[in-house]
Amino acid sequence: MDTHGSGTLAAPLLIGRDSRGVVTLTLNRPASFNALSDELLAALDAAIGEIAADAGARVVVLAANGRAFCAGHDLREMIAREEADAHRDLFARCTRVMLGLQRLPVPVIARVQGVATAAGCQLVASCDLAVAAASARFAVSGINLGLFCSTPSVALARAVPRKAALEMLFTGGMIDAAEAARRFLINEAVPDAELDDAVARLVEQILAKPRAALAIGKAQFYRQIELGIAEAYEVAGEAMACNMQDAAAREGISRFLDRKK
Amino acid sequence: MDTHGSGTLAAPLLIGRDSRGVVTLTLNRPASFNALSDELLAALDAAIGEIAADAGARVVVLAANGRAFCAGHDLREMIAREEADAHRDLFARCTRVMLGLQRLPVPVIARVQGVATAAGCQLVASCDLAVAAASARFAVSGINLGLFCSTPSVALARAVPRKAALEMLFTGGMIDAAEAARRFLINEAVPDAELDDAVARLVEQILAKPRAALAIGKAQFYRQIELGIAEAYEVAGEAMACNMQDAAAREGISRFLDRKK
Amino acid sequence: MDTHGSGTLAAPLLIGRDSRGVVTLTLNRPASFNALSDELLAALDAAIGEIAADAGARVVVLAANGRAFCAGHDLREMIAREEADAHRDLFARCTRVMLGLQRLPVPVIARVQGVATAAGCQLVASCDLAVAAASARFAVSGINLGLFCSTPSVALARAVPRKAALEMLFTGGMIDAAEAARRFLINEAVPDAELDDAVARLVEQILAKPRAALAIGKAQFYRQIELGIAEAYEVAGEAMACNMQDAAAREGISRFLDRKK
Repeated sequence: MDTHGSGTLAAPLLIGRDSRGVVTLTLNRPASFNALSDELLAALDAAIGEIAADAGARVVVLAANGRAFCAGHDLREMIAREEADAHRDLFARCTRVMLGLQRLPVPVIARVQGVATAAGCQLVASCDLAVAAASARFAVSGINLGLFCSTPSVALARAVPRKAALEMLFTGGMIDAAEAARRFLINEAVPDAELDDAVARLVEQILAKPRAALAIGKAQFYRQIELGIAEAYEVAGEAMACNMQDAAAREGISRFLDRKK
Repeated sequence: MDTHGSGTLAAPLLIGRDSRGVVTLTLNRPASFNALSDELLAALDAAIGEIAADAGARVVVLAANGRAFCAGHDLREMIAREEADAHRDLFARCTRVMLGLQRLPVPVIARVQGVATAAGCQLVASCDLAVAAASARFAVSGINLGLFCSTPSVALARAVPRKAALEMLFTGGMIDAAEAARRFLINEAVPDAELDDAVARLVEQILAKPRAALAIGKAQFYRQIELGIAEAYEVAGEAMACNMQDAAAREGISRFLDRKK
Repeated sequence: MDTHGSGTLAAPLLIGRDSRGVVTLTLNRPASFNALSDELLAALDAAIGEIAADAGARVVVLAANGRAFCAGHDLREMIAREEADAHRDLFARCTRVMLGLQRLPVPVIARVQGVATAAGCQLVASCDLAVAAASARFAVSGINLGLFCSTPSVALARAVPRKAALEMLFTGGMIDAAEAARRFLINEAVPDAELDDAVARLVEQILAKPRAALAIGKAQFYRQIELGIAEAYEVAGEAMACNMQDAAAREGISRFLDRKK
């Protein structure tokens, strides 16, 4: 695997990309609990741009080095800014990353160990899929410091039922991985030792599907979900008709029909 | 029970309608796992039109003959088409059936045994209620052939939490009935031998309610859910005021108050 | 605690407010299962207005005296009206209370014992958080009398998954507190004897947070959830930038960073 960050292994983000198109983005500020510094946000933004332009990329795993997945924004950098405009800019850059994950033409899987708090929990909610170690914990904990997790609430409220989201936002309390699975914030909580296997299983399942169909499907999913159902069906019908023009789909269906004979 | 299809018992859809207004639509292409052929879609569309016009219809049970509930579109017919317009037309006709179930003035219950895959899973998601045998299984499996289940994703994403939907759509994997209930795709998974009893219980509960109130309520439910909450309350308030003009509601309330005395 | 209603303890609504800003609204028509009479709705509306104007209010607990939480509208008053306009007016006043709870700048917790039916269940769904005694039960039971719970369905459909909501609305059947928690209608079901402790724990957690941050966060939560995700992030980013201008947030973050050193 070709692993590079912004030049060095001490870079805030490590980027791995294997020959099959599995891209691993590893948050790499373990001493800072992988807090989303300006540098790390910029690296994520750049990496997302590269993946979007990489026709060979097939799936992204968002992982993290160290004991935490991600503790949210870098508070030292955040407090150093005084102007509201500087904070508007920061949240806009963070939003660009979160929406960037959703807009990528390949599935994105969060691989979660340790704590995922505030914008770290938002990252988990923003990935298409998420698998966590049983010992992982989740919170939108900004309110504990007096800063309500408003931008994380956007992703959280679209992943989990409303009262479950509000409880996390108002109390700032931690939930464990089993509870996160119950609330549908993650797909699965697995024993810590089985985390990599569980992520690898998802990756293999995704690699076995045609890239184009996943790209069409993911794009229409997030588009149609914001529409009324009649309009949503128009978007989805067009996506499927387009997908059916794809050689891979026609071949997949033909092979299936031949096997059945 | 008066059971008729398009003339014969070999028709792709059997339509039963008893004297109490219980309409049973039975998918009847068991050798093809009840795949939604052009003929079957047309029969469903026609049946939905008839039920919509039948003032004595009270509830619809959507059932299926054979080992499968429904395996989705008829792939042989689908692949025989080459033009994107022919596929657009197919998905539009399928959408007409799915929205037709939602627009019927009576509750629609899916009675699920065996597999419900792709557009078959969409049928389950599109019914108001669903009860499944414990051995039933569900997937939006088009992606396994290279055809992302985009139109099924419209119904699925409105029934189940987002990450649960995306996992099914990206992996194409099967979930069992217990998991489908946990994800709120169905209301209940019951032992196979109790499936008919469980459906019958729901049917009896619905028959005990006034038709007009159910019709008003179902229509406003699907309308208000697409609106912002303030507008939604306007729609719902108007529906309740209208419902209160109904003699059955006034009598029901009066009887209740008399019993309490 | 200073407890007052509209003058007397026989008032339909008791209002308590302690020195820390914990406001308790207690439905007090136990002989009528706390049905929402005109008088009680007016008292709730007035109380919500007072709380909205009370800069020292920190959290609201919506509780109820007697064996029931709330059995919905006062049917005797409802049936006494004949004109549709009178019912439109009634549902508009009820909606004003439900939206009022959501628009309050402080978190609102339902403390539920006994039955919460029809508009009583809507009250639970409309509160930000809800804790119930294990013996509590929930239904949107209007359909049992021929009056579909249309206005309750607005709040219910935004709290619980769609098929779970439709089942309650079509059958009018009761679910117990454990099932209500599974469906995300409430946050938690606790043993009856522990209900007050569970509510008190939530209250203490909320009192430990700055009021301004909760107010900003709650308002943006309900605003952003009705928007597409890109627009939602604009609303949320603005809310966070505004929150960061707050002295309490800056102090909270600084204290946290100092502790870490």
